[in-house]
Amino acid sequence: MVKLVALYKKPADIAAFDKHYQEIHTPLAKKMPGLRKLEVCRFTGSPGGEATFHLMAEMYFDNAEAMKAALSSPEGKAAGKDVMSFAGDLIHMMFAEIDG
Amino acid sequence: MVKLVALYKKPADIAAFDKHYQEIHTPLAKKMPGLRKLEVCRFTGSPGGEATFHLMAEMYFDNAEAMKAALSSPEGKAAGKDVMSFAGDLIHMMFAEIDG
Repeated sequence: MVKLVALYKKPADIAAFDKHYQEIHTPLAKKMPGLRKLEVCRFTGSPGGEATFHLMAEMYFDNAEAMKAALSSPEGKAAGKDVMSFAGDLIHMMFAEIDG
Repeated sequence: MVKLVALYKKPADIAAFDKHYQEIHTPLAKKMPGLRKLEVCRFTGSPGGEATFHLMAEMYFDNAEAMKAALSSPEGKAAGKDVMSFAGDLIHMMFAEIDG
């Protein structure tokens, strides 16, 4: 299984970010074909104090081909366009393979 | 549910890192009391090309108290001491709450 990991740095306006993320972005992301699971977590801190990131979304797919197909689908493009509109300067995306 | 997220930057010697991580560190981390799930993933790239991070480990616990107790247990301290010995300059740890 593979996943698309989206790490978001702390936004200046956390309330506005969270509202857009939950009400607009999450429903768009969930429409991606082949998405097996979406797990979103909020960072609450780190052993050193504050966390560098605000939020992480992990989108699971069966394999790399399914992930690629989802991202280039109309639904994937719509989710990507939306994320760039409100978090283009905050997001860091990576592809990952799950061990085991 | 909460999780401890450990992000590792790319090590200079990937083979040596992976060997220590799999053979020494993972068994130590798995001994932590209260650990509900451990998910490890390897980053294979990013939309922009190379991924900034090499690996991510997510350790799930029932709640913040259980996570804190695990980290301060002898098993948690042993895992922490080990990670500092081979990846102290690579690791970035954060606490997170899972949405939904």
